[in-house]
Amino acid sequence: MPLVALLTDDQAAPEARAVFDEIRAARGTDYVNNIWRALANDPKQLRMTWDQVRAVMGPGALDPLTKELIYLAVSAANNCEYCLHTHSHAARAKGMTDAMFAELMQVVLLASQTNRIAISLQVTVDDRYLAPAAAR
Amino acid sequence: MPLVALLTDDQAAPEARAVFDEIRAARGTDYVNNIWRALANDPKQLRMTWDQVRAVMGPGALDPLTKELIYLAVSAANNCEYCLHTHSHAARAKGMTDAMFAELMQVVLLASQTNRIAISLQVTVDDRYLAPAAAR
Amino acid sequence: MPLVALLTDDQAAPEARAVFDEIRAARGTDYVNNIWRALANDPKQLRMTWDQVRAVMGPGALDPLTKELIYLAVSAANNCEYCLHTHSHAARAKGMTDAMFAELMQVVLLASQTNRIAISLQVTVDDRYLAPAAAR
Amino acid sequence: MPLVALLTDDQAAPEARAVFDEIRAARGTDYVNNIWRALANDPKQLRMTWDQVRAVMGPGALDPLTKELIYLAVSAANNCEYCLHTHSHAARAKGMTDAMFAELMQVVLLASQTNRIAISLQVTVDDRYLAPAAAR
Amino acid sequence: MPLVALLTDDQAAPEARAVFDEIRAARGTDYVNNIWRALANDPKQLRMTWDQVRAVMGPGALDPLTKELIYLAVSAANNCEYCLHTHSHAARAKGMTDAMFAELMQVVLLASQTNRIAISLQVTVDDRYLAPAAAR
Amino acid sequence: MPLVALLTDDQAAPEARAVFDEIRAARGTDYVNNIWRALANDPKQLRMTWDQVRAVMGPGALDPLTKELIYLAVSAANNCEYCLHTHSHAARAKGMTDAMFAELMQVVLLASQTNRIAISLQVTVDDRYLAPAAAR
Repeated sequence: MPLVALLTDDQAAPEARAVFDEIRAARGTDYVNNIWRALANDPKQLRMTWDQVRAVMGPGALDPLTKELIYLAVSAANNCEYCLHTHSHAARAKGMTDAMFAELMQVVLLASQTNRIAISLQVTVDDRYLAPAAAR
Repeated sequence: MPLVALLTDDQAAPEARAVFDEIRAARGTDYVNNIWRALANDPKQLRMTWDQVRAVMGPGALDPLTKELIYLAVSAANNCEYCLHTHSHAARAKGMTDAMFAELMQVVLLASQTNRIAISLQVTVDDRYLAPAAAR
Repeated sequence: MPLVALLTDDQAAPEARAVFDEIRAARGTDYVNNIWRALANDPKQLRMTWDQVRAVMGPGALDPLTKELIYLAVSAANNCEYCLHTHSHAARAKGMTDAMFAELMQVVLLASQTNRIAISLQVTVDDRYLAPAAAR
Repeated sequence: MPLVALLTDDQAAPEARAVFDEIRAARGTDYVNNIWRALANDPKQLRMTWDQVRAVMGPGALDPLTKELIYLAVSAANNCEYCLHTHSHAARAKGMTDAMFAELMQVVLLASQTNRIAISLQVTVDDRYLAPAAAR
Repeated sequence: MPLVALLTDDQAAPEARAVFDEIRAARGTDYVNNIWRALANDPKQLRMTWDQVRAVMGPGALDPLTKELIYLAVSAANNCEYCLHTHSHAARAKGMTDAMFAELMQVVLLASQTNRIAISLQVTVDDRYLAPAAAR
Repeated sequence: MPLVALLTDDQAAPEARAVFDEIRAARGTDYVNNIWRALANDPKQLRMTWDQVRAVMGPGALDPLTKELIYLAVSAANNCEYCLHTHSHAARAKGMTDAMFAELMQVVLLASQTNRIAISLQVTVDDRYLAPAAAR
């Protein structure tokens, strides 16, 4: 049960409806996800978040599917039920197969474990891995 | 400062040294990272972890660089200093450019924020995203 | 579904019922929240938690509404569904408006992102920010 | 040790230097924090983050000090060493006293504990706290 | 609602069914938990996880009940609804009483709070606690 | 570097010094850990925390060593460097052997992984594990 109302187009302020329209145009669908309808209670944050999504998730040095896989991995680490559901669908829409999903999860599970080893045993970073990229 | 000693080859039990040798052979280097030397205090866990690394990180439906990017993203979400240092080096060794690293971080930061939106507002998952893959 | 029974007044031990009564008196309502009914399975922990709530949440150098906003922000960061629901109601009862809630969330989202930047890039603390308060 | 170089003004791209100059002007100081110098390796993310900081942290329904307290509480929950140091200084610069800091920490500690109670015992949200704000 | 189908014996691949049979034999029950049916979508990960469970959870220097208590404490810290339910049942099956569960939770809550103190105040580790075990 | 000064006996307020003396008496040592010296900046929180430590960590349905193991496991899950160092020493002082520490870590690592499976795949809790203890 959300903490705020999921605003319909009629309930949303004009600035929020403008973002809804941009989402529809960008995604080629009339459907607007619940997270945007929740954010519409604060049109300023809705605008900031949507602008960031658009700036980040398009093609660049990484392709859009790789970005979705990374998104999904972070959502798994952060325990976000909503994001796991929506971004696994987004990843599949961009070409993620069952085999790719399985391997993504294998890496998430392996990292969950090795991260915990390094943290639990307080392993010192090897000197050779300490120099920042620009100094190499 | 680690909680356990980082065992040298001489200090490690034979089962642990055997894993060190497999790591050297697989990576084509004589260097064995601190995390393995810490794990060598428990040869059973060392063996399980190394076998899992080998089983998961090789090529498959996802290429090795994509797997490293996912690993790095999870390490960022889990706040693992050791893993951020070692896996950013591993990713660079597998071809990660500065531009790819920048975009990886952009996705991590975006997901950190949108995950928190969905969690903080307790946004309900849209019905259309609830069906598991196999039911679609 | 809770792991333990939510004890009614009749089911609770006398020490637990005594805490229920203090909660009722302090809040001016006959209603006792589920978290207290769950804690009643361990009267000792119930007593410690309630005493701490009373000691901390009253007026002091920070006003009660500011304390509720901080509580809500921590609950968002910790992914606590129960606490987000109950403390957003508590905050509204103490005067939180829709605009205040929106700004609270804006700060939580910004911090979620900048915290992740500092962690992901392992940014060194600037020397000028390292001295503890008492040394300044 | 940071994962990326902390860029000096001379090393930063013109778009990044432009943000540095905005930070200096907004804060009335010549000093630019390490987090901005790390972000300067990706001028696009630097711009997005700085714009968001400016949009969020100014006065509004909540005063700037309250926003800093919330920021600090989230940084404590997220285990961000860098942010705890820099934002406790920022909060003191905006008027946080020792007594206010002590009470902020009291609330963070109490919430850390009660969040964990609700999560560990999987306490069901009381019906009366489930309705979203807009439906009340 | 799971992200993947919970596979029945008929739907699972032979390698996955083999693990189901080992689980049945080891536990002396015909029932196979949902987590294994979800993992069966990736027989390789199912095999790795089950082998690790078998290797770790049996008697050793720590008795099986103590291991379950530790498992439950980690599940509470990690906010895992599924694991809290299944492992509290497993712990009870191995002898955990109501009084033991209450004390387990008391420790989890205390640690949640003192962990947050040390993190929030960035308390320096005392010199005397820094030497690794092997150096003492 | 701590956010607050680590107060010496001379710098601490009388209420804080009284807690220091109780710690010394309870532990049979003149040494007072840094976390208490940090907390001494807020004698009220110092008193609450120490009273809770005393109430929780003594013998009961669980023995003191088991409680330390649980504490250490939670500290590993919460990424608390300070607590990992101090509580691994406390656990060793109460009888934790190298073999016990190894098995504790094995359980922490296994749970880190299986918790993440259940969360990442959003596995539904089996009906048979949903009933609270009191209803069984």
